[in-house]
Amino acid sequence: MGKTNISLRGKNILALEDFSPEEIQLVLDTAKEMKNIIHRDIKKVPALRGKSIVTLFYEPSTRTRSSFELAGKYLGADVINITAGTSSIVKGESLRDTLYTMEAMGVDAIVMRHKAEGAPEYASKVVSPVIINAGDGAHAHPSQGLLNLFTIQQYKNTTDLKGMKYAILGDITHSRVARSDIQGMRKMGMEVHLAGPKTLMPRFLFEEPGIVIHDRIEEAIEAADVINVLRIQLERQKSGLFPSPREYARIFGVNDERLKLAKDDVLIMHPGPMNKGLEISPYVAYGDHSAIQEQVQNGVAVRMALLTLALTGGKDSEADS
Amino acid sequence: MGKTNISLRGKNILALEDFSPEEIQLVLDTAKEMKNIIHRDIKKVPALRGKSIVTLFYEPSTRTRSSFELAGKYLGADVINITAGTSSIVKGESLRDTLYTMEAMGVDAIVMRHKAEGAPEYASKVVSPVIINAGDGAHAHPSQGLLNLFTIQQYKNTTDLKGMKYAILGDITHSRVARSDIQGMRKMGMEVHLAGPKTLMPRFLFEEPGIVIHDRIEEAIEAADVINVLRIQLERQKSGLFPSPREYARIFGVNDERLKLAKDDVLIMHPGPMNKGLEISPYVAYGDHSAIQEQVQNGVAVRMALLTLALTGGKDSEADS
Amino acid sequence: MGKTNISLRGKNILALEDFSPEEIQLVLDTAKEMKNIIHRDIKKVPALRGKSIVTLFYEPSTRTRSSFELAGKYLGADVINITAGTSSIVKGESLRDTLYTMEAMGVDAIVMRHKAEGAPEYASKVVSPVIINAGDGAHAHPSQGLLNLFTIQQYKNTTDLKGMKYAILGDITHSRVARSDIQGMRKMGMEVHLAGPKTLMPRFLFEEPGIVIHDRIEEAIEAADVINVLRIQLERQKSGLFPSPREYARIFGVNDERLKLAKDDVLIMHPGPMNKGLEISPYVAYGDHSAIQEQVQNGVAVRMALLTLALTGGKDSEADS
Repeated sequence: MGKTNISLRGKNILALEDFSPEEIQLVLDTAKEMKNIIHRDIKKVPALRGKSIVTLFYEPSTRTRSSFELAGKYLGADVINITAGTSSIVKGESLRDTLYTMEAMGVDAIVMRHKAEGAPEYASKVVSPVIINAGDGAHAHPSQGLLNLFTIQQYKNTTDLKGMKYAILGDITHSRVARSDIQGMRKMGMEVHLAGPKTLMPRFLFEEPGIVIHDRIEEAIEAADVINVLRIQLERQKSGLFPSPREYARIFGVNDERLKLAKDDVLIMHPGPMNKGLEISPYVAYGDHSAIQEQVQNGVAVRMALLTLALTGGKDSEADS
Repeated sequence: MGKTNISLRGKNILALEDFSPEEIQLVLDTAKEMKNIIHRDIKKVPALRGKSIVTLFYEPSTRTRSSFELAGKYLGADVINITAGTSSIVKGESLRDTLYTMEAMGVDAIVMRHKAEGAPEYASKVVSPVIINAGDGAHAHPSQGLLNLFTIQQYKNTTDLKGMKYAILGDITHSRVARSDIQGMRKMGMEVHLAGPKTLMPRFLFEEPGIVIHDRIEEAIEAADVINVLRIQLERQKSGLFPSPREYARIFGVNDERLKLAKDDVLIMHPGPMNKGLEISPYVAYGDHSAIQEQVQNGVAVRMALLTLALTGGKDSEADS
Repeated sequence: MGKTNISLRGKNILALEDFSPEEIQLVLDTAKEMKNIIHRDIKKVPALRGKSIVTLFYEPSTRTRSSFELAGKYLGADVINITAGTSSIVKGESLRDTLYTMEAMGVDAIVMRHKAEGAPEYASKVVSPVIINAGDGAHAHPSQGLLNLFTIQQYKNTTDLKGMKYAILGDITHSRVARSDIQGMRKMGMEVHLAGPKTLMPRFLFEEPGIVIHDRIEEAIEAADVINVLRIQLERQKSGLFPSPREYARIFGVNDERLKLAKDDVLIMHPGPMNKGLEISPYVAYGDHSAIQEQVQNGVAVRMALLTLALTGGKDSEADS
């Protein structure tokens, strides 16, 4: 922090397409410092003391909510949680009015998950608190893309990712993680390889320079320096887009056999929660190549970085402490 | 604070009928100071550090709960939330025992919402923590009445409200907001005008000096300096007390046309959440006369004032900081 | 604290069978100091500042969850709550992965309730944060056993409980409270007396030295220095193990009449929430012999002690403040 003239102060975190490579790197560099805080005996800095953050989740997700909540608390912020399921703020009240209410209450940042694509962007247009998209439909999940980048830079021990090959396997069509990955990895100069059931990956959506679409999952695995195995939504099966779980595991599962096709230093990632034995085998999930648990910790670090940069520009945190 | 000899330390906030005009003004003056804190870059004072507050909601309300939760946190208190729906403390346990439990745990204030009228008063009799009524049936919602008063004093730029005309429109019978308004506005010398469907406003309940009951909503709008449009509970329709939503909007909705009947400087308020297009039109809700979003912020300020005054008397907060 | 060489730093709190009498007494002595904090005007010490605690409840329990949450907050820790019912972390994710996630997020302690006996022990084997069992099936609820011991030492005004007679009445078979009591009381040299419906207390499970099983509840009441009346789970009735509520109250309820059989200085305890009029009469619950509300406060104190001892060894708290 302080090494660059770039500032993300006041920036809404909606999608990685809005970030320059330099801005992405600033987040990752800041996250590296933040990760040290998580390892301290006393995980508490006053960087966001007196700031208030609301997690506003119209879809349930304890994992992402907890990650943001802890990130905020480690930084000294006040965090309150609002979940649609248990919340009257949501029933019979327009999203616009809920946002106005949060703004009026003095909230500094709204961490928002919504099934409607574009809901966080809409929010950023109608109210002044910083909006952080924690997942909107199949559109974007930028903090997930950033934590994946952070994890790769950590394991590959370099900030230069140019030319590295990144494979995303599974249901690409419906995945906001895939979209944020594609944007983030391309910005950083990586080559993206996609593979999955044809019904779940219409080629026309993704045919772009720097993206390679494979017919067989094995081809993507062979090519990859890093593999992101997407979580399968079992409910897709009802729509006929999807074989049986058993079939899926057999044809598309990343298991011990298929891992042998990969490079020796391949890195395995998964956004969690995992359906073990389905899209990924336990052996792969907990094996030597897996960065999956590290991703979770990096998620907290990246969210600490985003909150600090967006709410204070990152400079105040030093002055404060 | 400190300008008066009145103290609200230890006072249960049950209904505005228990407040003198001087006590109400003390809350409003304190809220004015509190509102400055919400606008600070660092919204955190140590006034209630080491105090613990429980929000105990037997009816869901994210809006009011969040307002109290943020108020407590801005003041440095610890706040925990208990909701009946997700709570075993409620199932199979009497209200009395739940209250005893909260008291034994060292809680300083219980912010309570309950469908039964009088439940907070009962609570105040059986346990020692300060009880703040956040709505009990159709009985009272004192912090809403106070924030409405605060909003009027702010917009009208005077603490002298005597003779001002305050209209409440809608389902008066079932509204705790209306009752707290009537008590608060009358204490401060305002004239109250009521209008709504006849089935939802039995005259005998409200025929008192200082209260004018209108047959037509237009008469109340014409008379008013301030208009509070109540939220319509759509479920009343089932009971036959209520026309169709369309009929309601046509006959009782506060819309662009009806607003033309009002005074030039009329103030429009609504307790939220709004059914836009039903009791209030979007044009009116977001128009120049609307104080609706400001009410939300004033709600946090008033709740900060109530918590500080009831828990510390208001003096400690200066000594502490 | 500091008076002993015993340290519980890093110890998982799974069941009282893992504790020596000296370790139990260390917890109780520490709890005594902690209880003073609850009575202070400012209930806040920095002992656990920068520590993060997750309450991970797979069964609902606002009472125990609130007790741990307040305990953590009074000590300056960050506390986040995860409940299975409202949580996606639980659905479709293995317990192992949920635990890995908590560990990766930097959590220092996981307070865990689970219907499966042994789940907290499993947790303690797969992740590094301190695990505190807040109830696992019919197995154990160690903080409840400890708070009961603390309450007895307080009322009997001695730390020497040897030979004292402790009666547990009700559904012994299904009660984790009974099991933790039996372990704790026996460790401290007390004699345990059991009585309840025969269908709910298979003798072979409990026939051990120091345990007396009674056919009639009156015998246990006559013998006891302390009586713990267990909460009846009304759903047992469906399984035919249980008479009607009316029958239960008549034969096994601790009421005014039966209390006359007890010693003059008998102490009545109940883990809560109470079914008043069923296993205990209101007269007994709120009478002179009842320590029931005091138990709730002692629960917070004991949990403060456990968190401090397990996370810091108890020494840091002095250095810090």
